[in-house]
Amino acid sequence: MQTDELARSRAAADRVLQQVDSERLRTAIAELARYGGRDDGGVARETLTEIDLQARRYLIERARALGCSVAIDDCANLFFRRPGRSDLPPVLTGSHVDTQPVGGKLDGAYGVVAGLEVLQALQDAGIQTERPVEVVVWTNEEGSRFGPGCMGSSAYVDPAKLAGYRAVRDGSQHSFGEAVDRALQAMPDVPRRAMQQPLAGFIELHIEQGPVLETAGVPLGVVTGIQSVRWFRVKVSGVAAHAGTTPMDIRTDAMAACIQMAHRLYAEAARRQASGLRLTLGRWVVGPNSINTIPGEVEFTIDMRCVDEGALAEFDAVMRDILQHHAGRTRVVLEAIFERKPTHFPTAMTALVEEACARTCQLAAKPAPLALTSGAFHDAMYLADHCPTAMLFVPSEAGISHNASEQTAHADLVLGAQALAYAVTRMAGA
Amino acid sequence: MQTDELARSRAAADRVLQQVDSERLRTAIAELARYGGRDDGGVARETLTEIDLQARRYLIERARALGCSVAIDDCANLFFRRPGRSDLPPVLTGSHVDTQPVGGKLDGAYGVVAGLEVLQALQDAGIQTERPVEVVVWTNEEGSRFGPGCMGSSAYVDPAKLAGYRAVRDGSQHSFGEAVDRALQAMPDVPRRAMQQPLAGFIELHIEQGPVLETAGVPLGVVTGIQSVRWFRVKVSGVAAHAGTTPMDIRTDAMAACIQMAHRLYAEAARRQASGLRLTLGRWVVGPNSINTIPGEVEFTIDMRCVDEGALAEFDAVMRDILQHHAGRTRVVLEAIFERKPTHFPTAMTALVEEACARTCQLAAKPAPLALTSGAFHDAMYLADHCPTAMLFVPSEAGISHNASEQTAHADLVLGAQALAYAVTRMAGA
Repeated sequence: MQTDELARSRAAADRVLQQVDSERLRTAIAELARYGGRDDGGVARETLTEIDLQARRYLIERARALGCSVAIDDCANLFFRRPGRSDLPPVLTGSHVDTQPVGGKLDGAYGVVAGLEVLQALQDAGIQTERPVEVVVWTNEEGSRFGPGCMGSSAYVDPAKLAGYRAVRDGSQHSFGEAVDRALQAMPDVPRRAMQQPLAGFIELHIEQGPVLETAGVPLGVVTGIQSVRWFRVKVSGVAAHAGTTPMDIRTDAMAACIQMAHRLYAEAARRQASGLRLTLGRWVVGPNSINTIPGEVEFTIDMRCVDEGALAEFDAVMRDILQHHAGRTRVVLEAIFERKPTHFPTAMTALVEEACARTCQLAAKPAPLALTSGAFHDAMYLADHCPTAMLFVPSEAGISHNASEQTAHADLVLGAQALAYAVTRMAGA
Repeated sequence: MQTDELARSRAAADRVLQQVDSERLRTAIAELARYGGRDDGGVARETLTEIDLQARRYLIERARALGCSVAIDDCANLFFRRPGRSDLPPVLTGSHVDTQPVGGKLDGAYGVVAGLEVLQALQDAGIQTERPVEVVVWTNEEGSRFGPGCMGSSAYVDPAKLAGYRAVRDGSQHSFGEAVDRALQAMPDVPRRAMQQPLAGFIELHIEQGPVLETAGVPLGVVTGIQSVRWFRVKVSGVAAHAGTTPMDIRTDAMAACIQMAHRLYAEAARRQASGLRLTLGRWVVGPNSINTIPGEVEFTIDMRCVDEGALAEFDAVMRDILQHHAGRTRVVLEAIFERKPTHFPTAMTALVEEACARTCQLAAKPAPLALTSGAFHDAMYLADHCPTAMLFVPSEAGISHNASEQTAHADLVLGAQALAYAVTRMAGA
């Protein structure tokens, strides 16, 4: 790009950024939050439920009012398209609008609403971009109704996954396939489009869902990648027996063995804190779980994450060693149940988002953006396998998410939308 | 007692012991086990259920066939009385016939059936004792349907407790009082008798429900006392948060804190093994109990027992210290939910049971009896506050009880009944 071209592109991005409207954004977030909104401020809008379909209908109408064309694919991912001067692969932004059984108004929804705000800001700035700009609503990011999560984005990238996903059933024995078909039937006016289409890039704006930005006092975060994660289930079998009648030296207490293992695991994780390793033993099921019976069976889970894949692999080996050496007389079965390698967003995309965030913070006289990794999964994790991808974060108050009390200061939400507007405009070419 | 009197008493006890009939005992155990018997060999006969009332009816008929008078008290404790030459306070034996939701055929039932076998053996030996001999069926020893356990024996000793017990409700909202009244109404032919009547003594024969006798290869155990016990509930509150997004150093992980506490508790308990201290952390409830959420709330129980009350009190103080020092940022609430001081059976009674067991083992060419303490509660624990009390144990295979697979070698059951016959005869005066 020539120097004057670059200056023009930045000037256009500045103009779009300045058209982002704080009150319009506030209203749009509140309007979408009505679909499944609860008295406690939370939102209950699990994927492809009736209330999710109503929310999608509302978004379709908003997009059409902006002059966008609307399309849907075989996984019920929705696309709102603002045409470009050319028909080149579009720049894609957006996120998801489904929630956990009870979630907040921002997780996912914010990225979609901010995407529509960018389209409106482009309109208000009178700018037609070179490439089309699209806002996507990915289906079933949360995975709470149908597991796993990120079905929509992962199937878009690899459509062969869809058949397997369609067979997954929810707690009421409805299949994901049936739910997708009902959604498609409910929108007969929305044309179908192919999955796996080429994209110029994907930029996802999301709340952090963690405390790093708030702790640092910084309103915008440039996500450089997503941590790798490994999940395990550990089953420890001992012998249940009477707590009063069984001498200590002949017990095979499954929980006592687990306590030894867990104690060593935490100690080894603490030794590796510099690597950014995160260890959570989140789920525990003890049997027979009676005050006066020695635990005979314990099952617990291990969630280990690290941005450094080498450090994670090393801790994995240490973990296996600990389980073996602290089993005592118990029988220990370790089962790996999930693994995801780390995602590293391409430097060019990270640099673009960094420029957008830095410019936004500069204009608002706010502290410069922070680079950080995401501990949570996002649709961007899958898109990164398909096209140049980036993410940016705004803070989450107290790091709380997946909870009715999830919140972000509105001023930060505006900054996030402004940075997104800047980045999308720069990438789409003004 | 004069030397010749003692010799006569021992000779009479020997005669009764020798009348204990192995096959009759086997048949009686099997017959009682039919009431609530299951295909897996277990027995489901919770207190004062229809099946428990049928079992009691069966026992009443057996006792009457033996020429016993039958009486019932206000807590539905049943008494089968074989008259003595005098009307002095009787020698009481027996136990309970209620079971856990699923128990075995021996826990409690064995002591009652063996008591009736002793009455039959007295009959067959043609011996009328000086004192009456009674067999008791205590109501609700298990405490699984209505808590706490040992309602019948504790109310017998302290009838003021009955009013409170009557108000306790089971899972179907039936009160213990209603259940007792229904039992009394179902036996209009059984005369009522007062509680808290004077007794010459109480001797309870029971399965060990632990592994000590089996491990030692000894068929009979003389119970010198019952361990003291303290029960606690520990509630630890941290902050639930996303396992992926929350850095280790700002977590308030309730389970991680509990692991530290539990690790120290087990270590301190291990240091005190010589005192006979027993520590069980049996019940764990973790919230929200999700693989990828840091535990925000954990509740666990502490069951600590020791035959040495001083050692138990010392460990109690150490425990409080550990909970305080390993709380970290969590909030810890300790709640004492039950305490029972140790029971020491009087030496004279222990000596009598020791003589009975030793004589039985000698006649059967078996290893000499072992003195041991009971880790479990028994009705004898309450009776010890009322009259001279003793207990004897037979082994439990693999120490298993409260389980359909609860078993004792029949030869050992016979030895237990023989020792009981000897001890009762000696105490009742032949």
